[in-house]
Amino acid sequence: MPEPPYYAVIFSSQRTPGEAGYGDMAERMVELASGQPGFLGVESARDGGGFGITVSYWRDLEAIAAWRRHAEHRVAQERGRSSWYAHYELRVAQVERAHGGPAG
Amino acid sequence: MPEPPYYAVIFSSQRTPGEAGYGDMAERMVELASGQPGFLGVESARDGGGFGITVSYWRDLEAIAAWRRHAEHRVAQERGRSSWYAHYELRVAQVERAHGGPAG
Repeated sequence: MPEPPYYAVIFSSQRTPGEAGYGDMAERMVELASGQPGFLGVESARDGGGFGITVSYWRDLEAIAAWRRHAEHRVAQERGRSSWYAHYELRVAQVERAHGGPAG
Repeated sequence: MPEPPYYAVIFSSQRTPGEAGYGDMAERMVELASGQPGFLGVESARDGGGFGITVSYWRDLEAIAAWRRHAEHRVAQERGRSSWYAHYELRVAQVERAHGGPAG
């Protein structure tokens, strides 16, 4: 990851019950996003109750807009709204500061 | 949640094995943060492998700075670094756009 500023897309969602091809799609979207111009990284966690947060990181708003319009991603977005998610929120945010590292 | 702009603190972490009082602390921190000036909301997910993402939302940078300095929160931060987390990343980002809602 570069130093800030860069962008984060925060996607939080509640899954509907049942698999319905979700795992394969999620894996494919990470693979596909990773190859897009301006992609910086992605991290994701989903709990046992089906609530999940995925944060993807991008160089700029143009990279995010291009990814949103990607044909295969659009199909996944549509299936997400129609079957995989009971509820979702998507936020676009500019990362201003970052720090971290090994703890302990 | 208000309309953007507002701020997000994206905290991703890998837990060390063992409980060591973590659950009680996490619950207490949510309770405590919720009472702080400028707090807007929080969402959190941790997967079965101990990787988690917590995103808290705040009115402005001043609210974030005050929460970072909160005495009880500082104790939790210290225990986080010394025992609960194997690795963590913390990012402060300004939310520029948000949308979502029920899917399906």
